[in-house]
Amino acid sequence: MAAKRVLAIGAHPDDVEILCSGTLAKLVKAGHKVTVAHVTNGDVGHYFIPAKELAEIREREAAEAAEAIGADAIGFGLHDFGVYDDWDTLHKFTDAIRKAKPDVIITHGPTDYLFEHIKVGQITVAASYAAGCPNIKTENDFHDNIPPIFFMDTVGGIDFKPTHYVDITDVMDIKRMALSKHQSQLKWMKERWDTDLQELMESVGRSRGIQSGVKYAEAFTQYQVYGRFKADSILPI
Amino acid sequence: MAAKRVLAIGAHPDDVEILCSGTLAKLVKAGHKVTVAHVTNGDVGHYFIPAKELAEIREREAAEAAEAIGADAIGFGLHDFGVYDDWDTLHKFTDAIRKAKPDVIITHGPTDYLFEHIKVGQITVAASYAAGCPNIKTENDFHDNIPPIFFMDTVGGIDFKPTHYVDITDVMDIKRMALSKHQSQLKWMKERWDTDLQELMESVGRSRGIQSGVKYAEAFTQYQVYGRFKADSILPI
Amino acid sequence: MAAKRVLAIGAHPDDVEILCSGTLAKLVKAGHKVTVAHVTNGDVGHYFIPAKELAEIREREAAEAAEAIGADAIGFGLHDFGVYDDWDTLHKFTDAIRKAKPDVIITHGPTDYLFEHIKVGQITVAASYAAGCPNIKTENDFHDNIPPIFFMDTVGGIDFKPTHYVDITDVMDIKRMALSKHQSQLKWMKERWDTDLQELMESVGRSRGIQSGVKYAEAFTQYQVYGRFKADSILPI
Amino acid sequence: MAAKRVLAIGAHPDDVEILCSGTLAKLVKAGHKVTVAHVTNGDVGHYFIPAKELAEIREREAAEAAEAIGADAIGFGLHDFGVYDDWDTLHKFTDAIRKAKPDVIITHGPTDYLFEHIKVGQITVAASYAAGCPNIKTENDFHDNIPPIFFMDTVGGIDFKPTHYVDITDVMDIKRMALSKHQSQLKWMKERWDTDLQELMESVGRSRGIQSGVKYAEAFTQYQVYGRFKADSILPI
Amino acid sequence: MAAKRVLAIGAHPDDVEILCSGTLAKLVKAGHKVTVAHVTNGDVGHYFIPAKELAEIREREAAEAAEAIGADAIGFGLHDFGVYDDWDTLHKFTDAIRKAKPDVIITHGPTDYLFEHIKVGQITVAASYAAGCPNIKTENDFHDNIPPIFFMDTVGGIDFKPTHYVDITDVMDIKRMALSKHQSQLKWMKERWDTDLQELMESVGRSRGIQSGVKYAEAFTQYQVYGRFKADSILPI
Amino acid sequence: MAAKRVLAIGAHPDDVEILCSGTLAKLVKAGHKVTVAHVTNGDVGHYFIPAKELAEIREREAAEAAEAIGADAIGFGLHDFGVYDDWDTLHKFTDAIRKAKPDVIITHGPTDYLFEHIKVGQITVAASYAAGCPNIKTENDFHDNIPPIFFMDTVGGIDFKPTHYVDITDVMDIKRMALSKHQSQLKWMKERWDTDLQELMESVGRSRGIQSGVKYAEAFTQYQVYGRFKADSILPI
Repeated sequence: MAAKRVLAIGAHPDDVEILCSGTLAKLVKAGHKVTVAHVTNGDVGHYFIPAKELAEIREREAAEAAEAIGADAIGFGLHDFGVYDDWDTLHKFTDAIRKAKPDVIITHGPTDYLFEHIKVGQITVAASYAAGCPNIKTENDFHDNIPPIFFMDTVGGIDFKPTHYVDITDVMDIKRMALSKHQSQLKWMKERWDTDLQELMESVGRSRGIQSGVKYAEAFTQYQVYGRFKADSILPI
Repeated sequence: MAAKRVLAIGAHPDDVEILCSGTLAKLVKAGHKVTVAHVTNGDVGHYFIPAKELAEIREREAAEAAEAIGADAIGFGLHDFGVYDDWDTLHKFTDAIRKAKPDVIITHGPTDYLFEHIKVGQITVAASYAAGCPNIKTENDFHDNIPPIFFMDTVGGIDFKPTHYVDITDVMDIKRMALSKHQSQLKWMKERWDTDLQELMESVGRSRGIQSGVKYAEAFTQYQVYGRFKADSILPI
Repeated sequence: MAAKRVLAIGAHPDDVEILCSGTLAKLVKAGHKVTVAHVTNGDVGHYFIPAKELAEIREREAAEAAEAIGADAIGFGLHDFGVYDDWDTLHKFTDAIRKAKPDVIITHGPTDYLFEHIKVGQITVAASYAAGCPNIKTENDFHDNIPPIFFMDTVGGIDFKPTHYVDITDVMDIKRMALSKHQSQLKWMKERWDTDLQELMESVGRSRGIQSGVKYAEAFTQYQVYGRFKADSILPI
Repeated sequence: MAAKRVLAIGAHPDDVEILCSGTLAKLVKAGHKVTVAHVTNGDVGHYFIPAKELAEIREREAAEAAEAIGADAIGFGLHDFGVYDDWDTLHKFTDAIRKAKPDVIITHGPTDYLFEHIKVGQITVAASYAAGCPNIKTENDFHDNIPPIFFMDTVGGIDFKPTHYVDITDVMDIKRMALSKHQSQLKWMKERWDTDLQELMESVGRSRGIQSGVKYAEAFTQYQVYGRFKADSILPI
Repeated sequence: MAAKRVLAIGAHPDDVEILCSGTLAKLVKAGHKVTVAHVTNGDVGHYFIPAKELAEIREREAAEAAEAIGADAIGFGLHDFGVYDDWDTLHKFTDAIRKAKPDVIITHGPTDYLFEHIKVGQITVAASYAAGCPNIKTENDFHDNIPPIFFMDTVGGIDFKPTHYVDITDVMDIKRMALSKHQSQLKWMKERWDTDLQELMESVGRSRGIQSGVKYAEAFTQYQVYGRFKADSILPI
Repeated sequence: MAAKRVLAIGAHPDDVEILCSGTLAKLVKAGHKVTVAHVTNGDVGHYFIPAKELAEIREREAAEAAEAIGADAIGFGLHDFGVYDDWDTLHKFTDAIRKAKPDVIITHGPTDYLFEHIKVGQITVAASYAAGCPNIKTENDFHDNIPPIFFMDTVGGIDFKPTHYVDITDVMDIKRMALSKHQSQLKWMKERWDTDLQELMESVGRSRGIQSGVKYAEAFTQYQVYGRFKADSILPI
């Protein structure tokens, strides 16, 4: 199998780490090239650290987390609560996708817990199509592919009926390590909302594992519309 | 990959051929052992041929169709409109499953067009569990597996949201051949209901192909309950 | 609030313990009278213990588990794989319900992992209506109520969108104790299927807890059809 | 338009009157021949009238109600809580359908409030297919049609997403009259359960009317599986 | 129980009154503080009254309606058809929520009949999260809560499967009074569209009452995503 | 039946031709006046033709295709990937609808394969309401109707559960002709993506025909919210 380029687009720094970094680690181990994108700089995700300082901290954390997975990190440079479906945003997404030239994209689905997550998923879908169209002009050249898309699990696994489960048992340490890089979030969520993100991730992973007969798993649905997926060559028995 | 035993359970002779024989042919080509089961003997499926004679014809057609695929054919010996959820029927299904000892089962799902199809699916689910339980006594010894189940497409592809598509382009001739063995049905459906089963099969196959980016495809959903499926080892990118 | 009678009807001994015994323990603590029913005697739930002996073991385990919760245990006396929708079974359910005279019933819902669970839920719904009709004659006198019904979570929490979560954090020890009484199942599931039922229960409970903002929770849906539920007197803010 | 034969199959005497007798009255007025069937004799539908006496009362009431609509009444002769999916019941339904030879059938759908309603719908679907098959032998000769089916609204309109609404404003008096014939039910429901069936019917009819822009309406879904419906000749604008 | 702050956000003046003012009246009676918000000034909701004059009339009507309930009224000051998902609108919503500091929010859900209703619901969800984040700067200080949200019924009760019903029988007079304050709408809807809003409200309320076993009810669903709801302490039997 | 005005609004030139031009041709034949609208000028729909030149080609193709159906063609003048839910776009849609003054609208539904299709559907819904409101000022005078809306099939027929099928067998030649006018698309899709749009259209049409008992059909759902549809006068048997 030829190495592929995988682009995981999460709304905020840490979303990808919580929801699908185990799968990304497995893809890296299998020889694929993985890029982790965070659409916003995460500048609202804290109680008292000012936005600008926070953004810097979180960009650094995102870079370290991606490194733990063996992936590249990129940011789209939007502000938290700054994702809106308009021409500029579409072009930002489109150019970032063109730069990464993914063979497959992973992003948020339509039932996640934040409206911003949902919008990131919608704009990613649109931009990944635009990226393949020469007449849409951005800094980077157009992509020669309109790639398949997988939607990652929702936070807490609520209202999500997976079509795919991935066994992440043997990369759980990498996932734990990647998430541990987001210290600003781990501390804030604990102090402000009494939420232990590591334990949440661990428990949801175990729950998805129980459902699919392994120790730990991550769950996905595939985006199934015309032109975005291909029949298997055989039934995966 | 080790060769596996695949059991496809259709309600009537010809259901499996219409709905998933392309996939079965691919599994045979890949070295797996496939058994095609028809629960009833099809003795009501004609306008004027008497039941007993019709049953004989259809058993013969089923055998020839299975042979075209490279599969074995078995019948559970029930009458058309004779499938009910009771102790005897459960035991018949259980024993037949124990004889085939499948690693995976394919059967009808909950939205197909005949109540008898739906019941075959339900009883198959129950019996495939019973087959693995030593305290349920039937002629054949208990099975050491409670296998995963896939539900095949509905007739006409109505009200069915696939989770899996299989590319059957290169085995369409085998599928056409297998279906052609059911001459009693092809003629009856044409004369009585003005339905060309070959063309129906061809059109639905093409339609599923369009949806999944290939020439011809068959569609399935996986039965996802506790204990019946396992996480993939990696995301199928 | 007046003490109420709660009847939890699980298909097999241990289903209620796994899926809702925390909630039952809370109801007992709140002064309600709880009865735990197992429809079958569980005589197929083991690898090598013969059916009759197994049934005795499991009745005993069921009694001990109910005692741990502070509930009564009753069995409907059917065999495993012996639940079918017929006149006799309806009357057995009806009479058992009349004996317990519940103000509310908890049972399996339509998406659980065993067809037998689903059928227990369906027949319970029918029988709980029949129990209130004098012209249906059984040993016990008719019930003066057609009670509301809650469906408990599915095994593994798959394909279940809860409408109600109950915080069971402070009764988890009771739930663990109740489940521990089903030694025949804990050992069999571990040895035969490598499943640790206690850990499964613990993990699903934690996962439902994460979803609903507490340490451990159990999930339910309410059966919402005409005549079976009543508006709240105020929005539960 | 040629006159057609319409068969409405309700589980119990009064179900059809409550749920779709306005539509039936309109069909009668348009020149169609309508038959109202009640599967059971309603012998459990009362608090203290003995079953046999009650069945006689209800058969009489059913006849009078059908007459008010301008329809025929037939009973399948089963007991309340006596509807099970087995060979005998299928044949009873099949023979009754063959006698009525309907061009269209109306019955209960899969989300109604009584399991017996749901089963009546399921067996009707199966039997209406069997009725067209010569090799299924019953007293009446086979039917030359496998008719389209509409499912009527649920009691209270709960969990029912209509695909069709019918304006019954100008036949509401007929509907009120038809329902008024079921005095045994009107009184029992009022005295035992404090339910005014006439007002319930009136309110649900008004609610369905509000939804569809008329004074009073009844709601339906069409049973959409292969072979059971036909494309419109033009979009109903 | 401590008094709580409840904020009901409707798209236009009169939406809240039609869809949930009975529940609000009950909350007021129970000692809670209720604020009724209308996002737009309603300046398009008439046939011939000019926008500016109409907005003044409707603000007055909104104030009187809220007073009838015992609630405060606030307007977000947008124009009809002026609700779009952008930065300014988010900040307007956020600041209004911060001013009201609600413990619980009621707003429109995703299946209501106007796109503007749906967008108000989406932006409310986003803004209620933003309101709790110090790094989002608006005139009012940040809120210390990311409150639970309930979605009110749709107009006409179409395509809405409630999870909660509230008995409003004893406050129907207050609801009638509150709605009666919207004279501009009652007259316009009657003259222009032949719709009697009072009767519509009355009929839907009665229909929801029939479904839930009371005289009049209002229906809701709870917004169930991570972090927005909490398990009950006991099953509401 | 009086002639009606039908407005079909597709996102791009060719969408309407692929998805519902058979139905439109039938409406034209029945004497109705049909307008085909394309929201964008299609300037991104090619591999190497520059945007401006492409837009001119596609406007011409759209005009010819509409002519083949017997319809008028109009463009809203937006760019591809230029459809966003904002004030200006709403007004453009509103004014176009006012100009066409439709009795019924056909547009894209919420599950189609491009986000731009979905948004066109959403804005059409909003604008068709705004068009009837005098206080929304655009170039054309307000419309006296808030028309019913039908959603056309998705591309490939994926994730679409039709409520209406229209038999287009006798106008298939017109549909083929109309689509053939979009030569820029037929060639581009073939050369760039190896997709034969004519064959795709033909196959989906045949598949919808099989489902609905005719040779070729098109599928629709009706937009069912308050105020947008009316009960039938009789059940369409």
